[in-house]
Amino acid sequence: MDTRNNSFVRIVEVGARDGLQNEKTLLPPEVKIALVDRLSATGLKTIEATSFVSARWVPQLADAEEVFRRIRKVPGVSYPVLVPNEQGYRAARAVGATDVSVFTAASEAFNRTNINASIADSLTRFQPILEHAKADGVKVRGYVSTVLGCPYQGEVPVADVVSVAKRLYDMGCYEISLGDTIGVGTPAKARAMLLAVAQEVPMHALAVHFHDTYGQALANILACLEEGVRVVDSAVSGTGGCPYAKGATGNVASEDVVYMLEGLGLETGINLDLLVATGAWLAAQLGKPTASRVTRARTAA
Amino acid sequence: MDTRNNSFVRIVEVGARDGLQNEKTLLPPEVKIALVDRLSATGLKTIEATSFVSARWVPQLADAEEVFRRIRKVPGVSYPVLVPNEQGYRAARAVGATDVSVFTAASEAFNRTNINASIADSLTRFQPILEHAKADGVKVRGYVSTVLGCPYQGEVPVADVVSVAKRLYDMGCYEISLGDTIGVGTPAKARAMLLAVAQEVPMHALAVHFHDTYGQALANILACLEEGVRVVDSAVSGTGGCPYAKGATGNVASEDVVYMLEGLGLETGINLDLLVATGAWLAAQLGKPTASRVTRARTAA
Repeated sequence: MDTRNNSFVRIVEVGARDGLQNEKTLLPPEVKIALVDRLSATGLKTIEATSFVSARWVPQLADAEEVFRRIRKVPGVSYPVLVPNEQGYRAARAVGATDVSVFTAASEAFNRTNINASIADSLTRFQPILEHAKADGVKVRGYVSTVLGCPYQGEVPVADVVSVAKRLYDMGCYEISLGDTIGVGTPAKARAMLLAVAQEVPMHALAVHFHDTYGQALANILACLEEGVRVVDSAVSGTGGCPYAKGATGNVASEDVVYMLEGLGLETGINLDLLVATGAWLAAQLGKPTASRVTRARTAA
Repeated sequence: MDTRNNSFVRIVEVGARDGLQNEKTLLPPEVKIALVDRLSATGLKTIEATSFVSARWVPQLADAEEVFRRIRKVPGVSYPVLVPNEQGYRAARAVGATDVSVFTAASEAFNRTNINASIADSLTRFQPILEHAKADGVKVRGYVSTVLGCPYQGEVPVADVVSVAKRLYDMGCYEISLGDTIGVGTPAKARAMLLAVAQEVPMHALAVHFHDTYGQALANILACLEEGVRVVDSAVSGTGGCPYAKGATGNVASEDVVYMLEGLGLETGINLDLLVATGAWLAAQLGKPTASRVTRARTAA
């Protein structure tokens, strides 16, 4: 997990949270627990386990407490969970979470529509979480979504992305994940956005998070790696999507990212065969074809 | 078609040949003619129209003569056709082709298995084609396949790619298309291969040709654009595949390439809306979902 080693790229596996929360096929807790346990065996160092949001908003993750309690916590692996507010934070802590994530948008329109709060209000809501976390020795990751476009307002000024990322970092988040939620970005835009944020937040505290809606995710990741980013969010089997963007496909598939990184001579510590097997297994559980090209190629008859 | 303008990228649309030849659903000539005519309307400057190979090997393109005769030839647009030998060259010329392509592999094993000839024999077979072409004022494009890996021999030494590309160029091909036939390449390997070839063949005479089997095509194209390549092969709707590589998906989708290039501020002269409409239409003709992420996103309900 040493991101100062320039040839090491840490993959933040978000399939069990960002992926599943947007999948319509509801999975039983046993499957989600098996998913996280399988992911733990691949060598991944950061596995987002679930989200302590209201079951009303995310029915798929209504079993967050059970899932978090029952996953095998492998020493050396982090299992962050998303918390929308203090209540979620307390629920996560009650089952022993030591890593949490908070989520806001760079687009005011997106935040108001989907979180029902202004960006400023979101940040205010995170303040007590960050204070508790500091006292509790809990690490907090900050997600900034819609960094390259918004389904409501269209363009999102880079200055707005920088401002939200800097606020979260200054509030105490150890890492800021920059998310192209609707997958519209292309490499030059992704690169420019990353470099602008890196003026205010150290590059080693930045992660990139791409969705593959327009097929651009790997190219965007390549451009950001070239600028020095060494933390990449992805989801095994490319699960997920954005319910607010028409035609939005899921997160970039972890298998495809790892395949590219290996080819680039970058280390991930991940066993690609085990990751492919996990992706194929998850796709079967969801009853849909995998969105990972690598898994499709490797498991073809 | 001025590749010396550094912000212009010429797309060589290979869907009607490299794409369709590997599609199992046989299309009537009318559909192929409509496909090429639709592509001509998008602003594409180079549209590979068909292949004058034996119908025994490629049943899909048994109607090459009829298709070539009946497509609308738009002034300023080239319609190259693949010719495997002198007989194919004569057949192509008989219906008025002024641009042809020849095809060989960088992998000896691939060439022997699929073309039933050594690389040296293939090149010898092309010699009279290139001589006739010179006399006839016909342009010849050279394809080199398996440049980043072979389904039979595995690794393909870069020196072998350089050697075949240089031979074709020295024989008179105006452009050499470097193809990762089985889609296994990653950006650093693609970049290194391109740069090695560019030591012997001018960059402006090189094109890159990626298949998206492992999802790496756009990232590979990005890396090659960064090194100066300005000609990219792709197929509308991502049709095709490689019958010799298990799980091989098709060519990179033209729509996804154009979307990326537009985002990079590079010009293609192509109307993306018309290209997306053509891709969606072709997918419907083939009775399968489009492999283009852009077309999927843009045509989602």
